[in-house]
Amino acid sequence: MAGRAIAPGSSSPDPSARGTELAESALAGDRRALARLLTAVENRSPAAESALRLLHPLAGRAHLVGITGAPGSGKSTLVAALVAEVRRAGRTAAVVAVDPSWPISGGALLGDRVRMQAFAGDDGVFIRSMASRGHAGGLATTTTAAATVLDAAGFDLVLIETVGTGQSEVEVAAAADTTVVLEAPEMGDEIQAIKAGLLEVADVIAVNKGDRPGAQRTASQLRAMLAGVEVLVTTATTGEGVRELLAALDRRRAALPAIGGDGSRRARAAALVWALLGDRVRERLTGPEPGAETAAVLDAVAAHALDPYAAADRLMKALVTTGDDNPVGRP
Amino acid sequence: MAGRAIAPGSSSPDPSARGTELAESALAGDRRALARLLTAVENRSPAAESALRLLHPLAGRAHLVGITGAPGSGKSTLVAALVAEVRRAGRTAAVVAVDPSWPISGGALLGDRVRMQAFAGDDGVFIRSMASRGHAGGLATTTTAAATVLDAAGFDLVLIETVGTGQSEVEVAAAADTTVVLEAPEMGDEIQAIKAGLLEVADVIAVNKGDRPGAQRTASQLRAMLAGVEVLVTTATTGEGVRELLAALDRRRAALPAIGGDGSRRARAAALVWALLGDRVRERLTGPEPGAETAAVLDAVAAHALDPYAAADRLMKALVTTGDDNPVGRP
Repeated sequence: MAGRAIAPGSSSPDPSARGTELAESALAGDRRALARLLTAVENRSPAAESALRLLHPLAGRAHLVGITGAPGSGKSTLVAALVAEVRRAGRTAAVVAVDPSWPISGGALLGDRVRMQAFAGDDGVFIRSMASRGHAGGLATTTTAAATVLDAAGFDLVLIETVGTGQSEVEVAAAADTTVVLEAPEMGDEIQAIKAGLLEVADVIAVNKGDRPGAQRTASQLRAMLAGVEVLVTTATTGEGVRELLAALDRRRAALPAIGGDGSRRARAAALVWALLGDRVRERLTGPEPGAETAAVLDAVAAHALDPYAAADRLMKALVTTGDDNPVGRP
Repeated sequence: MAGRAIAPGSSSPDPSARGTELAESALAGDRRALARLLTAVENRSPAAESALRLLHPLAGRAHLVGITGAPGSGKSTLVAALVAEVRRAGRTAAVVAVDPSWPISGGALLGDRVRMQAFAGDDGVFIRSMASRGHAGGLATTTTAAATVLDAAGFDLVLIETVGTGQSEVEVAAAADTTVVLEAPEMGDEIQAIKAGLLEVADVIAVNKGDRPGAQRTASQLRAMLAGVEVLVTTATTGEGVRELLAALDRRRAALPAIGGDGSRRARAAALVWALLGDRVRERLTGPEPGAETAAVLDAVAAHALDPYAAADRLMKALVTTGDDNPVGRP
């Protein structure tokens, strides 16, 4: 992989070659190339495909940890404390902060990210925010692709932090090996609703703001409710309990079956492949040859002249009878 | 369609026949059948397909109105006031309340739905809550299918109310002809972030709680910010401005191009067909013949032995070379 010579600063106009270059530079430790590659992944630009083709076989070593929880539970402070703990242990961490409610990309999203400036200049930490850009349903595959890049780039832990609550958060959690859900002590009835959705995806629960009254009781209640989920008490602002949280994550990592053997990685791989296959199918059906027929079928559905199931059957038939299985010239 | 005799209370064990029966009963005004049909749609049960095949050609007359907004903006009160206004005008309305953050279905979700009890026994109003059941990305297609059922059943307005905020809400808005975004007056900076995501999808903005100070100023600010979007002030608790809101919706409906002619209905039809085609593709590739090869390909990706793009290419090849284009015995 690294045998190919790369002219420093070269910028190929061919997206495929450009993606390969960015991937090779990122593997060699070039953080700017890594950042550009993540932008390509986020934008689903053509360069991302060649890069991911190269990087996917190198990934699979990192522990992908999703961190989620209600607003006000102290998520960003806990993420910063956890990263500091990872560094203290001589390991490296990347953070992907995903905000599904925000259609715009960029680092400015992170709001109170000031704490993270403690890691400025530390090559063992990489922080990146990603927005959803309206790609509903595509958030999980974009996050999975970003995690693959950071995994291949050699980070020991990839923390996927989600902002806000809702379905998208559950979707993002599906991209992680292990999901940590933060709770604040005694946040009352409103939190019950969030719990119902989020606790389903929790592997580890951190009751944060552990210095507040009620933290231990909240933890006990959660332990009673949820068998098999590790419940810890943390105080992110002081670092209390954060070492124990990292230890819990490491235990969980060790317990994951060998790479490829556990259901969650299998499900994630399958979801990604099905999404890419969906792209291929649309690409083929809207291509030069069957494109006009496809448009006519979709127009008929919009006009309520054809039902959508009959339309899907018709497109399926067009798909399998295009003969040449490679109309778009893929290798 | 209605020419077929249906034994009252009959319940065919064949899902396809059952779906047709439910659809015919719903068309005949049977509200219990309508409710069951929506459950089938929500559960994506086989009965839903035959029902939608029958109902899709009959739909396209209703105005599908998405209603969204920040928590605390008074959404459910406004929806109740709008339904009352629709009834006063001698028209009918169905309400689909979608809660993307909640993985469980059922009417109990609706919380403060007490106001809606005013419509109990009124056949011109139908209210239904739907949960996402973790079908990320599928929320829009499920909502579209539910709206098709209610549209075919003859409701003049189908109000699609979303709960909470986030990407899912934008996704649900895509299922509507017209999207109303509620704002509360002067809710401060936090709301700015919600606006950024939601105002993009707004066709009409209602500044609700219009009796509070700042309502008119908020409306003026929004008018200045957003050209082409109608901004109204409503007070849902008193009904003030609700007649004007309905008039604005009717103007918007009249301005929509002829059925099938406008981009949003075309996009919605296309999204639904692509989703169904995706189901067909997965069904075929995991079926008896290519199922073992498909499983091996997905395992290889999970084990990082094969990259996901190569996997998608391989599955595409398997798909188009299965020969028989109808292995699952569809008519």
